[in-house]
This record gives sequence, structure tokens and C-alpha cells, in this order.
Amino acid sequence: MSFSEFTIIDRFFAGQETLNSQVKLGVGDDCALLAVPEGYELAMTMDTMVEGVHFFLDVAPEDLAYKLLAVNLSDLASMGADPIAVSMALTMPKIEAGWLEKFATAFIKWAKDFGVDLIGGDTTKGPLTLTLQAMGLVPAGHALKRSTAKVGDYIYVTHNIGDAGLGLKILNGEYDAGIEAEQPISRLMHPVPRINEGIKIRQYANSCIDISDGLLADLMHILEASGVGANINWEQIPFSDVVNKYIAQTGDWQMPLSVGDDYELCFTVSPQRISSLDIQGSCIGEIDSSLGLRINKAGVTEEVSRYGFEHFS
Amino acid sequence: MSFSEFTIIDRFFAGQETLNSQVKLGVGDDCALLAVPEGYELAMTMDTMVEGVHFFLDVAPEDLAYKLLAVNLSDLASMGADPIAVSMALTMPKIEAGWLEKFATAFIKWAKDFGVDLIGGDTTKGPLTLTLQAMGLVPAGHALKRSTAKVGDYIYVTHNIGDAGLGLKILNGEYDAGIEAEQPISRLMHPVPRINEGIKIRQYANSCIDISDGLLADLMHILEASGVGANINWEQIPFSDVVNKYIAQTGDWQMPLSVGDDYELCFTVSPQRISSLDIQGSCIGEIDSSLGLRINKAGVTEEVSRYGFEHFS
Repeated sequence: MSFSEFTIIDRFFAGQETLNSQVKLGVGDDCALLAVPEGYELAMTMDTMVEGVHFFLDVAPEDLAYKLLAVNLSDLASMGADPIAVSMALTMPKIEAGWLEKFATAFIKWAKDFGVDLIGGDTTKGPLTLTLQAMGLVPAGHALKRSTAKVGDYIYVTHNIGDAGLGLKILNGEYDAGIEAEQPISRLMHPVPRINEGIKIRQYANSCIDISDGLLADLMHILEASGVGANINWEQIPFSDVVNKYIAQTGDWQMPLSVGDDYELCFTVSPQRISSLDIQGSCIGEIDSSLGLRINKAGVTEEVSRYGFEHFS
Repeated sequence: MSFSEFTIIDRFFAGQETLNSQVKLGVGDDCALLAVPEGYELAMTMDTMVEGVHFFLDVAPEDLAYKLLAVNLSDLASMGADPIAVSMALTMPKIEAGWLEKFATAFIKWAKDFGVDLIGGDTTKGPLTLTLQAMGLVPAGHALKRSTAKVGDYIYVTHNIGDAGLGLKILNGEYDAGIEAEQPISRLMHPVPRINEGIKIRQYANSCIDISDGLLADLMHILEASGVGANINWEQIPFSDVVNKYIAQTGDWQMPLSVGDDYELCFTVSPQRISSLDIQGSCIGEIDSSLGLRINKAGVTEEVSRYGFEHFS
């Protein structure tokens, strides 16, 4: 790394007060140092966003900073981990001080709001690419995995799904939501990582994933990792008013199940533990010993595969 | 991430046996899980390599895999940390199964040789960019920082420096080393992270950095972070035979001090502790209370700045 790059990192990112006592050394040395309290494990995840693939250059740097943090913290949330720190690899074609200042200021603000410290990273020259590694604490043995769903578990989804997908349709000019456009676009641009929900449900849930690829695709990840199947009911899947309206107007009931970017949690709880449920969640079905994912809509059951829907035979 | 990407990651990277008992969950879930033993801290570093900037497409995928690991593990070595795990963000323009298989096979082999587990990451479409986060264990409070050099400390360098820079000159056709070309090129392509040296010297060294930007630039990082100066002697700096020959032939005595990529360690030890020294290291000078970096060559002292050499006044 050249001196000029060091200076830029120092100028924008260094010298922040750390929020978490576990951070023993932050930005500025060859490594950062983290202490992990006894009885805890460190959960870590890494996500990359590439210009032209995950975002376009007309995105506001503030929105980019938010989303980079949110999608990584959502992965921590899905394990029930409490976020403490992030490191960031920032590759840029050239140093645009104005852009960088907006991005960095927003990043630091959002990181503080989420309670995480930026503890290191790398700045390099190249096509605009951002990689974040996020780290969080979870009591040892209590992380929520994909692979531990049990037959008989009820399947839950937090809040509503489909809004982010609808927001994308609105931005692409494929749907006119009129005065109701703001909420789905906001859900797309500023998804809320369900950190508090993850921390609560780790007490009683058997498995969990965050919905980044779409409800059906992500639930299938749980099913495949756990070696089980599931039956879900379309009528129980939670949609916002604007998504319900979209479905009523277009007949496209599959969209909200197939698009990602909602970053809600999908988790499973054994029937004996559902009285513990202390978050906003909708039960959409249950885990079954018969492999595969089946969805019932208005009395008709369809088998869901990676390639779409087929009438169940 | 799409299904096809999942499949590729699974095919090449998943299902490896873990080497380190601290890895509680590896590739395949939303997060990896690491346990940190009591009395230890986790050191972590992140480095990015971009095609066209840090390497060119004609580099063998095996060499790229090696260097990506080596440069990151070198940062751990410079803190005295024992590497245990890495996560990798791999951005590629398209899936070239042949290239990916060579890269992944070599990466897994080298990771095993270095004793680290690949515990997660992300694969995305975009310009070829590789980011690695490396993590290691260091006894709490014993990490070797840049900021803790003390006035009177002796300054040491491991092994020899300048070979990697000479290797680059040879590859660029700027110097003909004849039959001696192999060793400097090998030092450039396959730098050895000084992990064992870092672990040993953390017992007695006061500060340390790995030489990635050049001896002078990196030593200046120690001086600035520690608020001290240094006097070094050119005649004591360790060079290999081929570098000595290059200097004798060209008169270019500054090259080996200014080029990076050697990944040797530069560290400081108080005079009371030098009897502990148990690695191959050359004393090249000492830390001084007078700020700045001065180099003495054949009785003439020059002041080193970021901008080059000036006669000392």
C-alpha cells in the first residue's frame, strides 16, 4: 500500500473511539486484536459488493455504506450473534475524496448506530469492489445453524417479506405503486438486519437463516443442511399491504417468495418451545420428515424445486 | 449468491477437514464460528489483490493462491500470532472451472501447509479481485505492535532483504542475474511469512512490522507509531550474495531498502533482552530519541524521508 493510501485511510477511518471493550487494537497496525470473553464464540461472515453487479455507480455512497453493513450484520443476526467489529477491503479505481468522505462518514455513523467498530482492512486501486468481514459474539454452543432443524419444528418468518423485491420492480419501472412506493423502496435500500430478533430466538430456536436469496431458496438451504423437508402454507406468509395489493393486481403470488434482499429471518422452533416466542414472527408451516419443500395455496399443493414450481404428484 | 455459485464453492472449497480445534463451524452456513482459548486474543488482518494492479493474468493460479496466503500470514507473523483460519472473498468475471480448480487446489494445499483452515467467504461476479482475512492467536497482551519501540532498542531484520525487488527487476528485464536469477525470482513469487520467527520474538521484542513496503518505509511506520527516531548502518543490513553482486555492479545501493515484497520482519529489542535472541536476525541500528530516520553508509549519514535521501545537516 502506498503512503497516499495510508493517509486516506487515516484521514477518513482512523482515530475513532472504540465502542466495544473486546477491541484491543483497531485500525493502524499490521493486525487488529480482538478479545473473546470466556464462554463465547466469535461468529464471522464476509460479503462482497461489486459495482455493476450488486450496485450501480448512481447509488448514493451513503446508501452503499448502509447496505454493505446491513447485509453482513444480517448474517450475524441469523446466527444469533451480537455484532462487535468489522473490517473492510475497499478497492477503488481512483481516490475521489468527495465520494470517499461521504461513504466513510456514513459508514462510521451507521457502524456506530449498529454498535460495531471498524478495526481494519485494506484500500487498493482497482474496479470498485467492497468486501466486509463482520464479527460478533455468541454464547458457545448457542449459535443458530442451518443444519439443526428438527422434524415437527414450526417454521417462522420475522415481519413481512416481498417488499424489497417489490421495491426493485418499482425502481425498474415494472410496477407503479403510486404513493405507496416509498416503503418497498426503503426496504430494498435500507434493509434492517434483525439483530435483536436473532439474539432473542437463539434461546429457543433450532435453526435459522436470513432471507437474502428469497424465502423458498433460503428455506431450502435449511432443509438440505438439516436433511429434512417442509410443508408451508401460502396464506400464512406475512405480506405488507402494498405487497398484498401488488399480488391482487398482478396475480403474481410467487414474486415475494422468490426475491431476496428482505433480510428477514426464517427460523424453526420445536412445538414445545413456541410459548417462548417473544418477537414478531409468523408461523408459515412445519418441518417434515419427507424431503422436499411443498407449498399449499388455496388447497392445492405444489412442490418447490430450484427450478420453480411443479404440481405435486 | 446464486445456486451455481454455491455449487462451485461447495465443489472446490467445502468439506475440508479442519486442522484447528478452535474452528467450531466452517464453510457452509451464514457465519463461521471460532473459539478463542482463555488467555489469548485473536489477531486479524485483511489484504486485497487486484488483477492488473497486484498481479497480471499470466500469473499461475497456484502462485496467486500462495501469495494471497503468504502476504496475509506475514501480517499475522509481524504481530507474533499463530495463524489458525482464513476467509476469502473471490470476485471473478466468469467461472473458469479449470482456473478455479487449480487455484482452489493450490489454496487448500498451501493453507494446510501453513496450518490454517478456510472457514468462509464469498464468491461474486466481477473484475478479478481476491480479498483474504487471516486470523491467528496470540497470548493476550503479547502481540507485537508498531507503536511500542523504545529508545535504545536494537533494530533487527530477519534473513536477507532486497531479493524480491531484484527478482522484479530480473522479471522486468532490467537486470540480468544469469544463472543466479532463480533465487530472487523465487523470493518474489513465494515469500515466506516468518511465522515461527514472530512467535519466538514475541517473548522479548518490543515492536515489529513485516517488510511489505520496503525496509525504510516500514521502519518509518514503527518510528512514527512509537514517536521515536532511529540510526541504522548500511553496512549491517543483511543482503544475499546475488543482491550484493547487483549493488557492486550497478552502484544502486538504495534499491534493496526501498522495495517491498520481501516479507521479512523488522523488529526492535531492548539491549537487556538481546541475549534471548533465538532466530536468524541482523542488528542494523538502534532506536533514538531524536525523531527521523538516519542511515550511515561509509561514514556519511543521510536523512531518510518519504521522498528519498537527503544529506544529513
